[in-house]
Amino acid sequence: MSAPFDYRSAGVDLDKADDAKGRIKALVESTLTPGARGVFGGFGGMFRIPTGYRAPVLVSSADGVGTKLKVAIEAEVHDTVGRDLVNHCVNDILVMGAIPLYFLDYVAFGKLDPIVAEGIVAGVAHGCRENGCALLGGETAEMPGVYTPPDYDLAGFITGIMEEDAVLGAGRVQNGDTLVALASAGLHTNGYSLARKIVAEAMSLGVHDPFPGEGGDTVAQVLLRPHVTYLPALRPVLTQIHGMAHITGGGLPGNVDRMLPPDLDAAIDLASWTIPNVYVQLQAAAQVGVREMFRTFNMGVGMVIACAPDSVSAVQAAAAAADTQSWIIGAIQPGSGAVQLLPRDS
Amino acid sequence: MSAPFDYRSAGVDLDKADDAKGRIKALVESTLTPGARGVFGGFGGMFRIPTGYRAPVLVSSADGVGTKLKVAIEAEVHDTVGRDLVNHCVNDILVMGAIPLYFLDYVAFGKLDPIVAEGIVAGVAHGCRENGCALLGGETAEMPGVYTPPDYDLAGFITGIMEEDAVLGAGRVQNGDTLVALASAGLHTNGYSLARKIVAEAMSLGVHDPFPGEGGDTVAQVLLRPHVTYLPALRPVLTQIHGMAHITGGGLPGNVDRMLPPDLDAAIDLASWTIPNVYVQLQAAAQVGVREMFRTFNMGVGMVIACAPDSVSAVQAAAAAADTQSWIIGAIQPGSGAVQLLPRDS
Repeated sequence: MSAPFDYRSAGVDLDKADDAKGRIKALVESTLTPGARGVFGGFGGMFRIPTGYRAPVLVSSADGVGTKLKVAIEAEVHDTVGRDLVNHCVNDILVMGAIPLYFLDYVAFGKLDPIVAEGIVAGVAHGCRENGCALLGGETAEMPGVYTPPDYDLAGFITGIMEEDAVLGAGRVQNGDTLVALASAGLHTNGYSLARKIVAEAMSLGVHDPFPGEGGDTVAQVLLRPHVTYLPALRPVLTQIHGMAHITGGGLPGNVDRMLPPDLDAAIDLASWTIPNVYVQLQAAAQVGVREMFRTFNMGVGMVIACAPDSVSAVQAAAAAADTQSWIIGAIQPGSGAVQLLPRDS
Repeated sequence: MSAPFDYRSAGVDLDKADDAKGRIKALVESTLTPGARGVFGGFGGMFRIPTGYRAPVLVSSADGVGTKLKVAIEAEVHDTVGRDLVNHCVNDILVMGAIPLYFLDYVAFGKLDPIVAEGIVAGVAHGCRENGCALLGGETAEMPGVYTPPDYDLAGFITGIMEEDAVLGAGRVQNGDTLVALASAGLHTNGYSLARKIVAEAMSLGVHDPFPGEGGDTVAQVLLRPHVTYLPALRPVLTQIHGMAHITGGGLPGNVDRMLPPDLDAAIDLASWTIPNVYVQLQAAAQVGVREMFRTFNMGVGMVIACAPDSVSAVQAAAAAADTQSWIIGAIQPGSGAVQLLPRDS
């Protein structure tokens, strides 16, 4: 008797896909905002364009979670990476000044596990709810031979809206602006390939071992701390902000430059904050160079905001009201579009 | 001397990422439509909402290419899967009646290859240009340990627009409507896990071997034929269409039902077309059941359109003008929301 040739034997199980869909439906519905139009099961999700804008632009971004997923998979904690993904995307369009409307996700498995899929989408739905963003659709793919179970990948796509003439960034940032930092909660969604290598090879720690200096929290707990959304902190003060940089891949030097005009520098005072323990431990364990640390990790800074000096107190008050730690990290000064990291003893 | 700990040694090469970005920039710019706002290198892409709509909705969809990617990777043909992806997404929102505005992609590698990344994005840009859709942004991720080189994954997200009161589908499909089929160009983007298994195990063919009955075309050439966009064929006649089904995962039975109201059936006449050679060969080689074939593959049908009988000639003329083969495949009749595949001898 020959082996059967059907879609299931080829590694694609449509019944499991139906099971996953059933589990996801209620999660999707928990996120729906007034603009969302009956979406589940349609070919495409629909969203009513909000009225009241004069000349609006849509602002969109796509992103993934990177190898933070590997920590989640090893620790079997699947319900936080979706929140990381949404918050990362929300922050990416927030730096333009945009407010999120809706989100779509893409989850791909080697072997579809409906329970894991439910966990992943629960995290995505959590992130959507905390940002008032509808989860308008998504794709769950089973790709045997591309992903080795239990591995999966997760990507997302956000659409937001704003007035075109209110776009923040290099066109508004001015000489003399103050730079305000908002604290990150951890590595957010960047630097995980290096962090995992250091933890495994230089610190010889597994995901369930305590991470040094973190009050007994495990490696998984420290490395999976969710990416913060800065929307609640910054939405009330958007009109007082000139530019923002979301500190992701490339770190402070690779992101703050994206809001600079060609004739201004960002001078960042490295003495203005204490580098969080997780980076100190990673650096010490593997003797990573300071430059490499700052270009790989956020080093405790999730967002940098440029605003007029007389707006600083309002920005910091809004951050405090959203339980987000903030401090003055530097200033904009004449230059050439460069980010200067000023050493602690200067 | 200990091994160095930097981001590159951990498998993430930011210089290669910069190289890939440089290669992609001109491709992105080739797609930009008047609505797109200076996007390359920003945190988020911007798109001006078109004016002239009364009460518009945005229509969005996310999708991947599935294991068609494995054929592309094995054959080292990377510049068509992006076109598959865009055209799949365009068709998914077209069935609602929406016209595409912009697209974003997500490409993830185990080890980033800038040349391969350029090929992938060239395909995405080709798909965007043929649909008048701006490539507004994207993410290129390097995830060592998740993907085994040379494997990669590719996902995409589309946003389109239409009047909310013009949404096609179950609310408009009527008893007595004619069903018109538009031909597919091949497997499009579904059923590849099964097709690859049959080709390798039952037909014992490699990607460079001739596929039987295809005039000397290789397995790779047959299996990589790009997903067709039906936008050029259907855009001129959208107002004459009641409902559409894009034939993707689940085949005719799993997609035509999505445009049916609960009291109507779609009766599909299996004698109305000749099943293309590729499906005949796959079925014969592996003795796959007919039901399994129809739920896994599109069987030669890329799109099914429901319209009034007196609109059929206009729809077919529009298809012919776009070099798309069409035929009457069945009709809408009283029923229970089911798809009836009527056998050839009935």
